[in-house]
Amino acid sequence: MRRYSVILGNLGNTCDRFLSSGYKEKPPREEMVRQAASIPGITGIELVGTWDVTGQNVAEIKALLGRHNLACASIIPDHFSRKVWGLGAFTSRDAAVRKQAVAETREMMDVAVELGCPLINLWPGQDGYDYPFQGDFLRAWDWLVEAVRECAGYRKDIRLALEYKPAEPRTHSYAGLCRAADALLAAQATGCDNVGVTIDVGHAFAAGENVSESAALLARHGRLFHLHFNDNYRSWDDDMIVGSVHTVEFIELLYWLRRLEYKGWYSMDQYPYREDGREAIARSLEWLLAFEARIERFGMGRLSQLVDRGLAVESTKALRELLLGEDRP
Amino acid sequence: MRRYSVILGNLGNTCDRFLSSGYKEKPPREEMVRQAASIPGITGIELVGTWDVTGQNVAEIKALLGRHNLACASIIPDHFSRKVWGLGAFTSRDAAVRKQAVAETREMMDVAVELGCPLINLWPGQDGYDYPFQGDFLRAWDWLVEAVRECAGYRKDIRLALEYKPAEPRTHSYAGLCRAADALLAAQATGCDNVGVTIDVGHAFAAGENVSESAALLARHGRLFHLHFNDNYRSWDDDMIVGSVHTVEFIELLYWLRRLEYKGWYSMDQYPYREDGREAIARSLEWLLAFEARIERFGMGRLSQLVDRGLAVESTKALRELLLGEDRP
Amino acid sequence: MRRYSVILGNLGNTCDRFLSSGYKEKPPREEMVRQAASIPGITGIELVGTWDVTGQNVAEIKALLGRHNLACASIIPDHFSRKVWGLGAFTSRDAAVRKQAVAETREMMDVAVELGCPLINLWPGQDGYDYPFQGDFLRAWDWLVEAVRECAGYRKDIRLALEYKPAEPRTHSYAGLCRAADALLAAQATGCDNVGVTIDVGHAFAAGENVSESAALLARHGRLFHLHFNDNYRSWDDDMIVGSVHTVEFIELLYWLRRLEYKGWYSMDQYPYREDGREAIARSLEWLLAFEARIERFGMGRLSQLVDRGLAVESTKALRELLLGEDRP
Amino acid sequence: MRRYSVILGNLGNTCDRFLSSGYKEKPPREEMVRQAASIPGITGIELVGTWDVTGQNVAEIKALLGRHNLACASIIPDHFSRKVWGLGAFTSRDAAVRKQAVAETREMMDVAVELGCPLINLWPGQDGYDYPFQGDFLRAWDWLVEAVRECAGYRKDIRLALEYKPAEPRTHSYAGLCRAADALLAAQATGCDNVGVTIDVGHAFAAGENVSESAALLARHGRLFHLHFNDNYRSWDDDMIVGSVHTVEFIELLYWLRRLEYKGWYSMDQYPYREDGREAIARSLEWLLAFEARIERFGMGRLSQLVDRGLAVESTKALRELLLGEDRP
Repeated sequence: MRRYSVILGNLGNTCDRFLSSGYKEKPPREEMVRQAASIPGITGIELVGTWDVTGQNVAEIKALLGRHNLACASIIPDHFSRKVWGLGAFTSRDAAVRKQAVAETREMMDVAVELGCPLINLWPGQDGYDYPFQGDFLRAWDWLVEAVRECAGYRKDIRLALEYKPAEPRTHSYAGLCRAADALLAAQATGCDNVGVTIDVGHAFAAGENVSESAALLARHGRLFHLHFNDNYRSWDDDMIVGSVHTVEFIELLYWLRRLEYKGWYSMDQYPYREDGREAIARSLEWLLAFEARIERFGMGRLSQLVDRGLAVESTKALRELLLGEDRP
Repeated sequence: MRRYSVILGNLGNTCDRFLSSGYKEKPPREEMVRQAASIPGITGIELVGTWDVTGQNVAEIKALLGRHNLACASIIPDHFSRKVWGLGAFTSRDAAVRKQAVAETREMMDVAVELGCPLINLWPGQDGYDYPFQGDFLRAWDWLVEAVRECAGYRKDIRLALEYKPAEPRTHSYAGLCRAADALLAAQATGCDNVGVTIDVGHAFAAGENVSESAALLARHGRLFHLHFNDNYRSWDDDMIVGSVHTVEFIELLYWLRRLEYKGWYSMDQYPYREDGREAIARSLEWLLAFEARIERFGMGRLSQLVDRGLAVESTKALRELLLGEDRP
Repeated sequence: MRRYSVILGNLGNTCDRFLSSGYKEKPPREEMVRQAASIPGITGIELVGTWDVTGQNVAEIKALLGRHNLACASIIPDHFSRKVWGLGAFTSRDAAVRKQAVAETREMMDVAVELGCPLINLWPGQDGYDYPFQGDFLRAWDWLVEAVRECAGYRKDIRLALEYKPAEPRTHSYAGLCRAADALLAAQATGCDNVGVTIDVGHAFAAGENVSESAALLARHGRLFHLHFNDNYRSWDDDMIVGSVHTVEFIELLYWLRRLEYKGWYSMDQYPYREDGREAIARSLEWLLAFEARIERFGMGRLSQLVDRGLAVESTKALRELLLGEDRP
Repeated sequence: MRRYSVILGNLGNTCDRFLSSGYKEKPPREEMVRQAASIPGITGIELVGTWDVTGQNVAEIKALLGRHNLACASIIPDHFSRKVWGLGAFTSRDAAVRKQAVAETREMMDVAVELGCPLINLWPGQDGYDYPFQGDFLRAWDWLVEAVRECAGYRKDIRLALEYKPAEPRTHSYAGLCRAADALLAAQATGCDNVGVTIDVGHAFAAGENVSESAALLARHGRLFHLHFNDNYRSWDDDMIVGSVHTVEFIELLYWLRRLEYKGWYSMDQYPYREDGREAIARSLEWLLAFEARIERFGMGRLSQLVDRGLAVESTKALRELLLGEDRP
C-alpha cells in the first residue's frame, strides 16, 4: 500500500526573496508534528538536517515522532540554507566545503539509522552556476560523483537519493542534479547500488519533463528511490497543493507508479506561503487519494490496455470516463 | 444556451513542416460537412475563405450547410496559406499586398452576409517578424489598425474578430495580434464597435496567459467576440483535443464565460494530425459538455462565492468536490 | 543624454527563499550610497519607500544624496515586503489595506517632491493570485484602476509608473500589472496623464515579450515613463548583470529607446546574490555604455534603414558588423 | 581545424503547416550543391536519405560532390517525412515498420561507405507521443535501443549519432531521443562504441539545456559525435541563422568544443523559410568564424582561467572585453 509523508517544514513558515520574514508565524516544533499527524493519510515525516534534527537532538526527535505515531521517511541534510554553501556544497571549488558537505551527510546517515529512517534525500540546491563562463562542467561532475560515492560508501544500509531540479536557487543546476536522466547517470557513475534519484514532481514539470516517463526511466534502471509531491504551472517551482493545477498528469503518474511497483514514500513537499500549512497538505492528500480511488475503480488493466494500444482518441475518451464517467453525454 | 461549431478543415488532412503531404487523406468537402454535422452538439461550421468558400461558390456552400442543418459561425479569410502573404498581409511593407488583404476581407464580409454568418475571424498569421532588427513596430501598428478599420467600415453588419497568437508561423506576431491585451488595444484603436477579439484557448496557453483572465479583460471592455477551442502543453500551439491535457483551466474558463455572459460560438479549432478528425472533435465536445454539466450541478453561485473570497485551500477543495465529489476521503 | 541610476538596495544584501539571511552582509546606508556614486556613469539613485526613505528621514536622505552628487531618480513605495500586503495591496479584498496602499503612495509622492524626484515607480508585487478560482479579475481591475487614479489625482507634479511583471511573488500578477499592453490599458483607464508604465527588461523577457516592441508600443501611446535594467535567461526574473546573457536584444532595445526619444532614467535593478554589488552594477554600466558606443559608431541612420527594409539576412549581417566588424571573414 | 558543412535541403524550399507549398521555389539539385560549395568556409554536405541519395543514385551523387570539392559529412536517413513513419519508426508499435526503419538505416550505412562518409545522423522525429496515456515508455525504450543496436552492429566502420529533440513533430519525443542525457543513456545501452549523440544547438536551447554543459557531458563520456548549428528564441526550434539571436552562448559553446577536442563537423541545419538559402547559411558561417577569431585573439588560456575560477563579475567583464574590447569605458 502507498505510504504518505510530509516535510515537516511545510507546516511552518515560508518566506520568499521579497518578504524574508515569511507570510505567517512559525509554530513550535511539537505543534508542527502534531498537525502533520492529524492529516488523514499521513504516516511519515521528512526532516531537514540541522533545522529539525541533529546528532544532538536525535533521541528527542525519535521520541517526538513516536508519540505521534509517525515514521521518519527521509532526512534532507541542509546543503542549501547556510552561507557556507553559497557557491556550492558537493561541487564547491573549496575542498574544505566539499569535505564538510560529505561529513554532514554522513552524520545524517547515522542519525537516519537511529531514527529507523531508510533514506537520505540529497538536494544540494547551491550546486550549480549562474553566469556564462562560470560553470566548470568537468570538475563539477567529478566532484559530485566522488562526494556522493564517499557518502554512499560510508554505510550501505542507508540509501541516498539525488533530488534533481533544473534551477533555483542557481540559474542552472549542474548536470547530475538537473534532470532525471543526468541524475541517473550520476547515480550510476558512483558505482554504488545505494544511490538513486528522487523525483520532485514540480521540479520535473519545471524541467519540461513528462514526469511519468521520468519515473519509468528511473525505475527500469532500478534507481527510483523517492518522490516529492507538489504542483505548479510548469514554468517555476511554485510548490503548490497537489492537484490544484494538474489533473491528467497526476493520474498518469499514479498509474505508472503502481505499474512500476514503486515501493517508496509519497512525500508532500510544498511551500504554502499564504495558506494554512495543515490545510494545504490535507488538500493534497485528498486529491491523491481520490485519484487513486478512480484508478482502482477504472482498473489498472484497462489503463494498461490504453498504453499498449497508444491511440489518442481512445485514451482521451477513457480519461474522461475515469474522471467524469457519469457525465457521459 | 451555448452553441458549438467546428472549423471545417479540422475534418480534413493536416500537415506539418516535416510531412508536407499530411498524415492522412483529405475527404471530399461534402463528406467533411456530413461528418461535422454528425458530431453530437455541433450546430455550426467555421469556413476558411478561398479554401472552403469564395464569392463564386457561396450559393453552393449555403445549400450544402442547409442540407446538413449547420449554421455558418464564422469565416476566416485566408491571410496565411499563400506565398503572397509570406512577409505579411495587413502589415506587408508592400502596399499592394496590404490592399489585397483588405479587399479579400471585404469580399468575405459580403460572403458572410449571404451565408447569414455574423462574424469574420481575422488570423493574419504572417503579420509578424522573425529576426532582430526586422520588425518595424511603429509602421506595423499603423498599417494593422488602418487596414482593420478599412475592413470594419466597409459594412457595419459584420463583426471582425482579431485572433491573437504569440508566434508561428513567424517567431513573433506583431503587437495587436500577439496577446489579449494588445489585440484589445488594436481593436479599440480602430474606433469601430464592430471590431473585437477572438481567444484561441491554445494560443492563450502558449502566450502564458490565464485564459480566464483574458476572457474577463476582453469581455469587460465589450470586445470578446469569438472563441476557438483546443488544448496543448502550454509551450506550443499543439491544437489537441479539448480537455486532453488541461482540466481545471477549462472548468475555470467555462465558469467565467457563463458569468461574463458570452453569447458567441464555442468553436473547435484542432489539428488532428494522426487522428480521425471526426473522433477528435467528438472527444472535445464530450469533455466540454461534461464540464458544463459539472458546473451546473455544483452551482454557479457556489463558484462565484469562491472567487469572491479568494481562499486557495477552499477553492482547491471545491474543485476536487466538483470533479471527484463522490471520492471524498 | 542618457542618465543612469541604480536601486540603492542592489548594493546591499539579497536573500532568497532558501537562504533567508542572504548570501552577504548588509553594509551601512551611507556606504551603499558611496559605492553607488563611485560607479562610473551612475548619477542617480532609486529608493524604496520605508526601507530607504520615509516622511521622517527625508531631510537626512536629501543631504546624503547631495553629498554624493546623486539625483533621486525614482521612489518605489514598499507594497511587497510586509505581511500586511501578503494578499495584495491595491487589489486586497480588505478595503483598509487598499486604503493604506494609497496613503503610503501619497506620502511617498510628497517625499518625492521634497527630494526633487519626478517619479514614483509602483511595483505592488503581491497584487495577483496563485490558484485557480482565486483571482477575482473584474473587481481586481476596478480596485487597481481606482487606487492608482486616487494616487495620481493627489498631485499632478509627480508621475506614477506601473511596473509590470508576469509572476513572482504570486504565480500570476493581475492584468494591469502583468504585461506591457495590459499595464498600458490600466494606465489609460485611470484617465490621468501622469500615469504610465515602467519596463523592467527582465520582466519583459520573462513575459515572453520582445522588449523593443513593448517599448515602442508604450512610447507611441505616450506612456513609457521609466526603465529597469537587468538580465536573465528568459524563464525567470534572475536579476542578473545587464549584458551577461543577452546581447542582440539589448542593442535593439537601446536603438529603439533612442529612436523613440525616451527621456527617462536607465535604472539598474539587480539581485547580485553572490556577487559584490558595486562590481555587478559596474559591469552592467560597462556593457550598456559599450553598446551605446557601437550604436553611435554604426549609425542610427543605418540601423533605421534595416528596420525600414526588414530583410533578415541583411539585418543579421549588419549586426555582426556592428558587434564584430573587424572580424569580417 | 574546424570543418563546416551544411544540410543540402537548407538550400532548397522549406514549408510549414500553414503554407505547405513552401515560401520559395525549389532549385534543381545541382544548383543547390553549387550554391553550398560557394559559401566561404563550407567544405562538406549532409544529405537526407531518399530525398538526396539512395542506393540507386549514389554514384551520381558521389560524382556531383566530387565536382564541387565537397565531402559528405553525414547522411540522415528519412525516418520522418513519409506516412509510413507517422506513428513512429524505431518505436512504432508495428514490427514491420520498425524493421523497415532498421533496413533503410543499414542501406544508408552502405551508401555512406561508398561516399566516404563516416557518420549516419539518426533523427527519427516521429518516435514519440502526443497525448496522455499514449506513450508506452518501457517498450519504446527497448525498441529504440534494440533497433539502434541492430543498425550499429551491421557495420562498425560507420558511426551512428542520435539527434535528440524535446518535441516536434510529436508533442514529446521518447526518452533516448529527447535530451542530451537520455540520448547518452540510450547510446550506452546499445553496448556499441559506434553509437553516439548529435547535438543540434537549437534543440538543446529548446530543451532548456545549457548547450555547453551538454557538450561537456557527452564528450566526457566519449559520445559527442556530431553537431548541428542553428539559432532560435529558446522556446521552439526556429532553425534560424546562427548568431542571429544568441551571442554569449555560442562563444561559450565554441570555447568548450575546442577544449573538449571535438573533431567532428560543424554542420549547418536551418530552415530559411523566407530567406535566400545561400545567404542565410553564409551569415551563419560569418558569425561562427568571427566568434572563433575572437576566441583565438582573447586566448583559450584566459577563458579556461575564468572557468577555473568561476567568478561571475570577472567572467562577465572578460566577455565584454572579448566582444567589445575597444569600447571599454
